[in-house]
Amino acid sequence: MSTPTTVRNPSDLARVLPPDVSAATFDTAIGELIAALGEDGVHVDPELVGRYDDEFPVTGDLSFTASAVVFPATTEDVQEIVRIANRHLIPLHAISTGKNLGYGGASPRVAGSIVVHVGKRMNRILELNGKFAYALIEPGVTYFELYQAIQDAGLPLWIDAPDLSWGSIVGNILDRGVGYTPYGNHSLWKSGMEIVLPDGDLLRTGMGGLPGSNTWQLFAPSFGPQPDNLFEQSNFGIVTKLGIQLMGAPPAAETFQITFDNPEDLEAIIDLMLPLRINMAPLQNVPVLRNIFLDAAQVSRRSDWYTGEGPIPDDVVERMKAELNLGYWNFYGTVYGPPPVVEQYLQIIEGAFSQIPGSRFHTTRTRPHSADDRGAHTLHDRHRINTGIPTIEEANLMNWLPDGAHMGFSPLSAPDGADALRQFRMVKQRADEFSVDYAAQFVIGLREMHHISLLLYTKTDPAQRDKTLRLVHELIDEAAQNGYGEYRAHHAWADQVAATYSFNDNAQRRFNERIKDALDPNGILNPGKAGIWPARLRGRGL
Amino acid sequence: MSTPTTVRNPSDLARVLPPDVSAATFDTAIGELIAALGEDGVHVDPELVGRYDDEFPVTGDLSFTASAVVFPATTEDVQEIVRIANRHLIPLHAISTGKNLGYGGASPRVAGSIVVHVGKRMNRILELNGKFAYALIEPGVTYFELYQAIQDAGLPLWIDAPDLSWGSIVGNILDRGVGYTPYGNHSLWKSGMEIVLPDGDLLRTGMGGLPGSNTWQLFAPSFGPQPDNLFEQSNFGIVTKLGIQLMGAPPAAETFQITFDNPEDLEAIIDLMLPLRINMAPLQNVPVLRNIFLDAAQVSRRSDWYTGEGPIPDDVVERMKAELNLGYWNFYGTVYGPPPVVEQYLQIIEGAFSQIPGSRFHTTRTRPHSADDRGAHTLHDRHRINTGIPTIEEANLMNWLPDGAHMGFSPLSAPDGADALRQFRMVKQRADEFSVDYAAQFVIGLREMHHISLLLYTKTDPAQRDKTLRLVHELIDEAAQNGYGEYRAHHAWADQVAATYSFNDNAQRRFNERIKDALDPNGILNPGKAGIWPARLRGRGL
Repeated sequence: MSTPTTVRNPSDLARVLPPDVSAATFDTAIGELIAALGEDGVHVDPELVGRYDDEFPVTGDLSFTASAVVFPATTEDVQEIVRIANRHLIPLHAISTGKNLGYGGASPRVAGSIVVHVGKRMNRILELNGKFAYALIEPGVTYFELYQAIQDAGLPLWIDAPDLSWGSIVGNILDRGVGYTPYGNHSLWKSGMEIVLPDGDLLRTGMGGLPGSNTWQLFAPSFGPQPDNLFEQSNFGIVTKLGIQLMGAPPAAETFQITFDNPEDLEAIIDLMLPLRINMAPLQNVPVLRNIFLDAAQVSRRSDWYTGEGPIPDDVVERMKAELNLGYWNFYGTVYGPPPVVEQYLQIIEGAFSQIPGSRFHTTRTRPHSADDRGAHTLHDRHRINTGIPTIEEANLMNWLPDGAHMGFSPLSAPDGADALRQFRMVKQRADEFSVDYAAQFVIGLREMHHISLLLYTKTDPAQRDKTLRLVHELIDEAAQNGYGEYRAHHAWADQVAATYSFNDNAQRRFNERIKDALDPNGILNPGKAGIWPARLRGRGL
Repeated sequence: MSTPTTVRNPSDLARVLPPDVSAATFDTAIGELIAALGEDGVHVDPELVGRYDDEFPVTGDLSFTASAVVFPATTEDVQEIVRIANRHLIPLHAISTGKNLGYGGASPRVAGSIVVHVGKRMNRILELNGKFAYALIEPGVTYFELYQAIQDAGLPLWIDAPDLSWGSIVGNILDRGVGYTPYGNHSLWKSGMEIVLPDGDLLRTGMGGLPGSNTWQLFAPSFGPQPDNLFEQSNFGIVTKLGIQLMGAPPAAETFQITFDNPEDLEAIIDLMLPLRINMAPLQNVPVLRNIFLDAAQVSRRSDWYTGEGPIPDDVVERMKAELNLGYWNFYGTVYGPPPVVEQYLQIIEGAFSQIPGSRFHTTRTRPHSADDRGAHTLHDRHRINTGIPTIEEANLMNWLPDGAHMGFSPLSAPDGADALRQFRMVKQRADEFSVDYAAQFVIGLREMHHISLLLYTKTDPAQRDKTLRLVHELIDEAAQNGYGEYRAHHAWADQVAATYSFNDNAQRRFNERIKDALDPNGILNPGKAGIWPARLRGRGL
């Protein structure tokens, strides 16, 4: 990251301008934006703009600080914003609600970008269809809001919520987030998008291209190529409407927790898991395997256990396990169906994992949550998430450290015990070297695992922040050398991650650049996102 | 379609040249192709090239006739072919095996194109992985071949076969074909593609971009946008490798047939079906609803029933139903799981559809196939297809008429009784007007139906062919006026179908053209496919 044009600090709230844009040009653009959106739709006040800084900062400077924020109310507003940006070559950074903690939050990749907060005013549920089980939504709709609308309508539909439901559904899908029910692969369950292209043109994908069609949210393709997934993790357009298909509520569901004593059990856990998962039965949902720190952080603080320097010692970990009645690894999943099927599946799962010495099997019925049993907290919270009920309990993680934050390091792996153990050891060893706490979560799809490594630090402590940043930089390269790639990353290391996909002289990046230049010749939309730079700003070291 | 450069007839096998290409330039290109591929890799003999004509011709001229055919053996060969075509501005038409009956077969959209028969020599199964249940294949691998390889390896994996298994898996997926097991949405179950771009560059999508990764066939995206679906039904690249994920064989499976007496039962059938299907239980697979003509054509000929002019009279239809013990509509599906679950699901399904007066429920056990019960033929053939066993029995359809062929008219619809009935009446009424037999099949996904209307004609009868062509042209426009779009089409009406997606001045087509021009500036790859023309040939009326 280069130094931004202007440096701002709390006592000197000077303006941060985009690259190559003069103050006069910027002011002209702001004037045009006000003419289009009204005074209350355009903000340059540093205090307000500062709210769009990364909540979990990874640098101490203004590398990821915006110049302004705008609030479109309609698709036409978004088109007009894009046209103004094209005229003045001002980079835009579109967000839905701006969560995305650990990956940059609401902050732009290029300092001085104008944040287009699409979801601020565009937050309607345009359709909620009980018969065909889908919704058509605007970017501002949160998981909580869709859940509430479903309850209000009395429909037997479930949402598939991520760990924290306060954010935008559209934003989660576009950053390729995952959930935990059988609809956990969010990218698969979208159908139909309305997209403002970087030149202001308007595209509706799929059957939305056919006037009068009633299948826009039922069948994602149309005739010819299907571009929808081009708009995930990219800077090719601003999504203004999106269809999401919803799971029907099953007759019954029950959630289990299986605790495993030893870090080395990981290999056996994953190898036992795969045959139960790959056919979607009995492990029907996206189960998760979490280490003790992630579960402990839901109900306690680091200082409750240890106040010394360096990594938390083994004897303290043993005390955590004993007091919380948890394992080093804790596995959560939910089974669905008619009650007899639920019972049968639970028995199969319990039987399979009982082969690992020391494992203990619980369900929400056998282990109620109480003040005396804090270790049951996550079991009951996962039950809510896995049965379509939004929560924000996982935000407790931020209390583990004072002013707590985390950086996400998220390599993919095969659902293979040897791979899991190799990844775990790699991250654990490096994190211990850097004295960074590592809250681990393996999120398990049908044939792959997202290894979500949450590296915890105190965001107000520059030394902790800097070492965590260095740690992640090292991990990305070490992972790539072992054949592991990240599926998602903070924009601080987007270029680095993109570079690891190096086959044929980085063919993927070169392909993305060709698409970028074709759709966004002036390079105004979200430059640098996912390592994709437009021709105008490429190679500038921004 | 304009007149091709040169007209050829059986007694005058003159060369068909591509637009704007002189015989001398063409010969130079052929010379370069021979230098690259060897004499036996390049063919201009009209007899051999004629084998790539549409097996089910829709016009009587050479609108869709190739100039040459080439057989690459490696990805590098494909890259070299593309480079030669760029130098001489010669359109290419890439095929995997060249089936695709009813949608153009192996024939190119632009007369005089060189057919690149990728699958002829590139037909290896590069990997077959039992643990993670996937295969990595080249374009020439057929469903039969993959099935045989799985049997030879003794793996408990199923293929998801289309109606006819003689064709290429890659070709089926790229034209967005469907199958009938729970893995029936073929587009969803691919993971990882290797693609030669129109300028000869080589892209590997997903985790194939990361050297040393073992997850190329496990997780389809990588970091950043995912372009895979851009290469379905498009002319943006030539796929040379593709990963396909495979279903694990369940403990048991049973197939049922439910017959319904009256055409008007359609509405009730679909409305009863939806709640059983949308949650993937008890209707776990992609079921099909077929009309009497499609089933009768498996075991008899039209002339066995009727030799008069005009549509087949109602009393003859009644005789068919009685003699074959079939309904006007016949519904086929399969349930999977442990035997008690299979039994339970069959009971639910039988109970639900028994609400329709006159319906009869059979399974492969209650209705064995015998010479005395020809109406059981399709039940047993569907059982094979729905349990991962490839067949080509459905090819019997081509014997319904002498020199039988069909044109596919394939509109999408909601899985709604009213939509189904409206579509059926529309096609039936028009087909009766044109005296064309209409073999109907509704292929039922989770939230949509592919209404595959097979319009049957004698391909050697110009009058029959021409009226069927006119019929399809009328149906496309009539469907669009009612909000129904086609998901697939013969290239004779690709432009017409693409035009029906008319939202915002055909934003979809304009978007596709921008991608096309960025990736294929010389417009050499498959011009006109899915209505996408490169700048060089756009608006030429080719």
